[in-house]
Amino acid sequence: MKGPAAALKFWHHNQMKKQKHNVHRIFGINNALAVLASERFFIRRVELQKNGRAEKSEKLLNLINKSDASCQLLQKQDFLRMYGGVRSQGVAVEFSGIVLAGHLPDFSRERSTCLLALDQVEDPQNLGQIIRTAECAGVDGLLLPKHHSAPITDAVLQVSQGAFATMPLYEVTNLREALSRLKDAGFWVVGLENSIAAKHWHKIDYKEKIVIVIGSEGKGIREKVIESCDFKATIPMQGNTNSLNVSAAAAAILFERLRQINKE
Amino acid sequence: MKGPAAALKFWHHNQMKKQKHNVHRIFGINNALAVLASERFFIRRVELQKNGRAEKSEKLLNLINKSDASCQLLQKQDFLRMYGGVRSQGVAVEFSGIVLAGHLPDFSRERSTCLLALDQVEDPQNLGQIIRTAECAGVDGLLLPKHHSAPITDAVLQVSQGAFATMPLYEVTNLREALSRLKDAGFWVVGLENSIAAKHWHKIDYKEKIVIVIGSEGKGIREKVIESCDFKATIPMQGNTNSLNVSAAAAAILFERLRQINKE
Repeated sequence: MKGPAAALKFWHHNQMKKQKHNVHRIFGINNALAVLASERFFIRRVELQKNGRAEKSEKLLNLINKSDASCQLLQKQDFLRMYGGVRSQGVAVEFSGIVLAGHLPDFSRERSTCLLALDQVEDPQNLGQIIRTAECAGVDGLLLPKHHSAPITDAVLQVSQGAFATMPLYEVTNLREALSRLKDAGFWVVGLENSIAAKHWHKIDYKEKIVIVIGSEGKGIREKVIESCDFKATIPMQGNTNSLNVSAAAAAILFERLRQINKE
Repeated sequence: MKGPAAALKFWHHNQMKKQKHNVHRIFGINNALAVLASERFFIRRVELQKNGRAEKSEKLLNLINKSDASCQLLQKQDFLRMYGGVRSQGVAVEFSGIVLAGHLPDFSRERSTCLLALDQVEDPQNLGQIIRTAECAGVDGLLLPKHHSAPITDAVLQVSQGAFATMPLYEVTNLREALSRLKDAGFWVVGLENSIAAKHWHKIDYKEKIVIVIGSEGKGIREKVIESCDFKATIPMQGNTNSLNVSAAAAAILFERLRQINKE
């Protein structure tokens, strides 16, 4: 096969690949509400289970009616045959759209902005939880290195409970470079690292423009990235296990920031 | 079947039931270290994967040698055939023992004790995470109502990353009654509840003897239990999703307590 036919096939293949890449399916009322309320996504299909919990949510039904999406109301056994193993609350939403932004916006004119950078967080459960916690804690965006990160799969979106629809997620090719540009834009960079040189997490001022860098549980923040940090914060462990989950560490530091801002 | 034979069968059945109830299997280096180091458990068997990560941990090998447990070194394919779907790091430990204590000790002479009570937390992932976070945050014990709680399954132990071996877990039949007895022993009770009557979480003093009560995500703390609380704390949401994961909320409040204690 050569000439136009091959070109067409190639184009078609690429389109499919692109499409496949951008099509997501999420479950549950929170996720469905967030995706339907957001105007960033194209809703391809909503599937509801007859007499399921989701079908009783007026808020959800209103959003479905307002949207252009086609909606299928399925018998319980049909819904469960497809999505039996999932905690779906009786709703599945298939949508397409760009979840990860490729470029960092210009933050130079902003004040009091908080970004969270995740270096090498590879566990989808943790990544999803951190997106959710960050959204609840008023973080303005997440920086995710292109390599050494868990990919944004449907499992990650699912765990985030809809937070991905409103929380900007920025994919950065080179985290060190991104931090350097953010520093030029007036940010301070704090790395969470358990070392002797680090201050207790609550002794750092998070009230201004700040990037908080969190590494993976096993490996921590990469050497090159730590070098970019203006401050290092540590959360000293009180028990024997000595291993705080990375999403719990994120919660501790992000709500300490909110406490400082609230106190003002 | 009647007489001695029936009695024997009944006895045997009960023994089996008991045994089944108390035998657990956990995976991973952290979990294995915690169980082997603790003297609370009878180690039935350790299985190691040849050339797996666990086999390279000297600390783990030392503990295995010191213990009376029989240890099997398995070829990779044999280990994976049994535990292929699990993140095992090449180690499985089967042990028996009592994970849940039935009675609350007498705390009346203690000072600065922190207990965490979970009301209706039904998700094993959340329960395991909270046990882990509580251990890292120096909590002195967890109160788990006998009913309306996730049972302490191997999945819960697994997520706790060994924290269950050192963190006392108390099963209480009636949480309200347990709180009342703890109040008599000098505890203040704080309930985490998003209501108008609640104070911001960081405006409450956690430095003395305190019980922090956390409810399930969907249902919150039961009415009768909320009535037992001396204070109510809230973590106001900053985003749109309005649903902080219960283990993230636990992290926020437990590390706020540590901050207050550190500051003194």
